Amino acid sequence: MFTAIPLQIIAQQALWGGVQEQSPEIHENHTVTFRLNAPEAGEVRLSGDWMPWEGWSPGTEMMEKGEDGIWLYTTPPLESDLYTYFFLVDGLRVNDPNSVYMVRDVASVFNMFIVGGGQGDYYKVRDVPHGTVARRWYHSPTLEKDRRITIYTPPGYESSSESYPVLYLLHGMGGDEEAWISLGRTSQILDNLIEEGKAEPMIVVMPNGNVVQQASPGHSVEGFYQPVMRLPNTMDGTYEESFPDIIRFVEDNYRVNADKESRAIAGLSMGGFHSLHISRYYPDTFNYIGLFSPAVMPDENADSQVYHQIDETLKLQKENGYELYWIAIGKTDFLYGQVESYRIRLNELGMPFEYVETEGGHTWKNWRDYMTIFIPRLFK
Amino acid sequence: MFTAIPLQIIAQQALWGGVQEQSPEIHENHTVTFRLNAPEAGEVRLSGDWMPWEGWSPGTEMMEKGEDGIWLYTTPPLESDLYTYFFLVDGLRVNDPNSVYMVRDVASVFNMFIVGGGQGDYYKVRDVPHGTVARRWYHSPTLEKDRRITIYTPPGYESSSESYPVLYLLHGMGGDEEAWISLGRTSQILDNLIEEGKAEPMIVVMPNGNVVQQASPGHSVEGFYQPVMRLPNTMDGTYEESFPDIIRFVEDNYRVNADKESRAIAGLSMGGFHSLHISRYYPDTFNYIGLFSPAVMPDENADSQVYHQIDETLKLQKENGYELYWIAIGKTDFLYGQVESYRIRLNELGMPFEYVETEGGHTWKNWRDYMTIFIPRLFK
Repeated sequence: MFTAIPLQIIAQQALWGGVQEQSPEIHENHTVTFRLNAPEAGEVRLSGDWMPWEGWSPGTEMMEKGEDGIWLYTTPPLESDLYTYFFLVDGLRVNDPNSVYMVRDVASVFNMFIVGGGQGDYYKVRDVPHGTVARRWYHSPTLEKDRRITIYTPPGYESSSESYPVLYLLHGMGGDEEAWISLGRTSQILDNLIEEGKAEPMIVVMPNGNVVQQASPGHSVEGFYQPVMRLPNTMDGTYEESFPDIIRFVEDNYRVNADKESRAIAGLSMGGFHSLHISRYYPDTFNYIGLFSPAVMPDENADSQVYHQIDETLKLQKENGYELYWIAIGKTDFLYGQVESYRIRLNELGMPFEYVETEGGHTWKNWRDYMTIFIPRLFK
Repeated sequence: MFTAIPLQIIAQQALWGGVQEQSPEIHENHTVTFRLNAPEAGEVRLSGDWMPWEGWSPGTEMMEKGEDGIWLYTTPPLESDLYTYFFLVDGLRVNDPNSVYMVRDVASVFNMFIVGGGQGDYYKVRDVPHGTVARRWYHSPTLEKDRRITIYTPPGYESSSESYPVLYLLHGMGGDEEAWISLGRTSQILDNLIEEGKAEPMIVVMPNGNVVQQASPGHSVEGFYQPVMRLPNTMDGTYEESFPDIIRFVEDNYRVNADKESRAIAGLSMGGFHSLHISRYYPDTFNYIGLFSPAVMPDENADSQVYHQIDETLKLQKENGYELYWIAIGKTDFLYGQVESYRIRLNELGMPFEYVETEGGHTWKNWRDYMTIFIPRLFK
């Protein structure tokens, strides 16, 4: 009655499973080999974010062409971490055709891999209970638009009747509601820290901090446009003014402890700027503040409304009290000087804070690291 | 007190917003221009899924090199639809470095774009109320593992107290719980059809049909491995036996109408196979069955347990009754013959069904089309 399927369905593999070389191959000694089959190319380079940076870009290394037309490069042993890379084939930027693991950073797509056996294990999916990640839409009356938001609820949220604390986690310039969950590995870090007993189960709310956007590129009516780094009105106080819309949405829609003790806010770069200003705009709202490589006053216009009454509101925030005001930055970060000035200012105001200085610069490597240090400090 | 930010933050754009050429550029007359800056390349081809297919692959067209080293190709006018493409640079498969819009199909990553003004408008994000898309984990007692699942809840689900009908939507071979939501544009199709009043608000459940997997590539403890087309135990009855775990999870965790009138099941290719067999395994469970280019008996082993008592269970399904048994396939689909045999068999059994025959073959173009026809038929 039925005919057997031809073997064509397996032949599909030649097309859809078009993998030929293993790339990247992570060896036991933490060296990593990359392969690219490009017999016609004159020069192939590899650019990886573990290489010494040259200004705003990681450096490149020459790959070596084998007799079979496959270009090869093997790294020195790498520390356990998550890394991104791409190829340059005669100057053309090329993603690794043998790996489907890619991640977007603003307008560029990188391949990625994880070297385990250390810090990188926090970024892996482990065999532990997993939280839920939802992409939802909320209405912002202040901005007069529907907006997309990414929300992590911890393992057990749906089956319990408990209420949870909330971390509001803010992206940097050029980022959006996808940045922390993809590049930041938020759900993996939270799942793993919670399972290890190092973090309290919490809800993590990742909004879109670009007030002119409804959603990240490709997820709004604007369609498939080319993303840009700088958008209007990102650092002029508009986001700060509209932020209560997000808190209200979360507290109306999730089982949360709607009190200061159970609210944290943190962000990277521009998200550090937003965390700084939102927490002092609403100076009795957050018990935990995390500034990761924060921009402090990046607006060219120092008269911007967002800077009004800084000292007064910071003092108020101090008087109202908080559990943790945490600042971290890398030694070579271009924002180092701003953060230094801000530390002096906080000391002058007598505002207690903790300061962590790390190696490196303005990188996702640092921001993921900071997450694994900051998160265990919350809601204890 | 604060220092102004250096303009370096804008210089970042050169790195992270590394877009130089507009590609693809969709013109008003529905022609599309592709550009690739590769002055050193000897030959650049474009492969797009609107081109005539050669076996399992779309064909390719030569691009033309301009004096500036930028290769150009402009299509004829394209029908409104979603399309995928990639470049071949001296034979090397290359994603478009000027577009971040990519989608994975098994082990290959394609760029994508949408030509609007017709069918393609169902695949766009419009300014309409949006449902929520959640990636969750459920426990399957039958398979003895935690498994990842993608769930769409319609606009208004969270703010209402209503109960909703459920469509179980199953992927094909090589797919997983990400296939329908990414390649299938499920959330866009549902949002748009619901807003137009053409579809009832419904929950769409997109499980992982590969019983050996916990989750799609990159989302399980298996890490960043190279995806393959064919996995063990996909078509041997194991999924059919474990499917009640999924229904139970959904009905325990969502406000659903837990009755046959409010349950639909549909799938493409292997997911059509699963829908066929699951609906007869549990012959009084689904009121709507959709088989999109279904595999009917693709297992080489006709003695497989999954085929036992086919006639008996189909007859039982017929006696119990259902609202719609819907089959669609393209004229050039390699499974056409199997579906033809199955139609004869259904007629012999006196089982009512609707049959839609379209142009084209075993493609996502067809499966997205079928969704926009099938969904409006449900739960009326």
